[in-house]
Amino acid sequence: MLGELRRPIETALQSACDFGQGCPDHLAAAMRYALLAPGKRLRPILVLMSAEACSLHSTGESIADNTRLLNQVMPGAVAVEMIHAYSLIHDDLPAMDDDDLRRGRPTVHIEFDEATAILAGDALQAEAFQHLCCHVSDPVKLAAAVSILSSAASASHLVGGQADDLKAENDHHPESVRSVDWLESIHRRKTGALFSASLDLGAVLSDATGEQRSALAGYASHLGLAFQVVDDYLDFTADAAVLGKRAGKDAERGKLTYPGLLGAQQAKEKAVSLIGSAKQEALFFGPAAKRLLWLADYVLERTH
Amino acid sequence: MLGELRRPIETALQSACDFGQGCPDHLAAAMRYALLAPGKRLRPILVLMSAEACSLHSTGESIADNTRLLNQVMPGAVAVEMIHAYSLIHDDLPAMDDDDLRRGRPTVHIEFDEATAILAGDALQAEAFQHLCCHVSDPVKLAAAVSILSSAASASHLVGGQADDLKAENDHHPESVRSVDWLESIHRRKTGALFSASLDLGAVLSDATGEQRSALAGYASHLGLAFQVVDDYLDFTADAAVLGKRAGKDAERGKLTYPGLLGAQQAKEKAVSLIGSAKQEALFFGPAAKRLLWLADYVLERTH
Repeated sequence: MLGELRRPIETALQSACDFGQGCPDHLAAAMRYALLAPGKRLRPILVLMSAEACSLHSTGESIADNTRLLNQVMPGAVAVEMIHAYSLIHDDLPAMDDDDLRRGRPTVHIEFDEATAILAGDALQAEAFQHLCCHVSDPVKLAAAVSILSSAASASHLVGGQADDLKAENDHHPESVRSVDWLESIHRRKTGALFSASLDLGAVLSDATGEQRSALAGYASHLGLAFQVVDDYLDFTADAAVLGKRAGKDAERGKLTYPGLLGAQQAKEKAVSLIGSAKQEALFFGPAAKRLLWLADYVLERTH
Repeated sequence: MLGELRRPIETALQSACDFGQGCPDHLAAAMRYALLAPGKRLRPILVLMSAEACSLHSTGESIADNTRLLNQVMPGAVAVEMIHAYSLIHDDLPAMDDDDLRRGRPTVHIEFDEATAILAGDALQAEAFQHLCCHVSDPVKLAAAVSILSSAASASHLVGGQADDLKAENDHHPESVRSVDWLESIHRRKTGALFSASLDLGAVLSDATGEQRSALAGYASHLGLAFQVVDDYLDFTADAAVLGKRAGKDAERGKLTYPGLLGAQQAKEKAVSLIGSAKQEALFFGPAAKRLLWLADYVLERTH
């Protein structure tokens, strides 16, 4: 179901890895290493799925078979993955989460060095906006896309969420922040904002209506949070071989998580409930909701 | 001469420091600490000067007296200072230049901590683009501004220049990179690109002609390089009290500099020659070149 979307995304990401003559080889190598790392490509897939739901609702056609629509929205898919890749590089740094493994491979500062990792992240953020500029020709759509992406990447969303997440971990008075509301506020910014931006990018780049954008915003909100609950749940229960990272590390360092706050069973129930709400929102698109519904189930299935 | 431009810039920077409800207090504090740090505001001034030269050439009016024009181009001035501030925060990190003092004050990772410094830099980069989106209403101008700024901040310019600068410093075979051409290539990317972007932002936000943009590009190219030559020269000759940073540190760690490669006298002559070329380009603007000429002299005067 997702493979036919991943293929054109991988091709587009590969093509996007020409960073110009002034980019030093070792910097380009680190950027490629991060951007082309094996991954689910969930955010770019959301961009494509959103455009499919908004544009092809009457035809039932797959966006994978519609080259015109693919070309129209792919810049958003590439840009959002660049932002995601940059945030992972920086999150893994010694001063941040201090992870040496990501998706089963050494993290960027391990494979290269810390300075190169900082710079590769910095550059990928700039490249995300530059990529939109180079590939979205309609200035009105470009303006909307830059606004959506820069807001999601801003101090009040992506970066603010990570800052509070780190703070929660290091807080000397953990009781003051150990509430589900607080954890939700962190994840709505840290993960949710980029999920929402992905769906909104697909919408604005494919000329969606206000009603369509609004339904997608609801879907994104529930899906993004469910994704994080499931992620926490997996860390809590799974073993390293499955996840490709050091499982149980969250608990080990006292990180705030849903299973930690609610218990594993209730965390799982929360994920089920959120996915139910996401699917409810997706029904707005009628038969065109097919892939949105499938993805919602897919996020939850990881817990089985 | 510059004070009347700095005042509205300081006001605009202060107003830009509302980073939204989702931004944690300590992150906002670090961002403000960096963005509002005492500084020359050279890049924002270039934005304003450029708009003045392009728009008011027939009137001889100062942009400081023209609120409409100030409002039109100030978003570019704020955005470019945000990019500059972010790059300074990250350049100062332990894994990079490892500086603990900047403009006479503790650097961000010293005053706060390393994670907060990384995040404040990341967020300031996103805020630069977000600021343009919120304050430039014409989508065609916004598209041009985002393109100019993201290109200057990209892997082939700002970040690539810093990456090669660090590499030159750490290179185990320094002879291979110890050429003036190589140093110039680093500084054209690391400093020059943002100088050029500043002047071009002022131009596109004030409806400049192609000829005006081209003359400004020539001016920017010479001025940016001259600025860096002078900076190296000052580090080579001045003492810590004047600069507010550990002078001579460049030489101490074997950093590639113009005086190091050419000798102090020849480096100064290079700066004089570059400033001459910059002023030649500025003459395109006739009487409206006044402030551009003054700034060129000002850059050089720091060596006296």
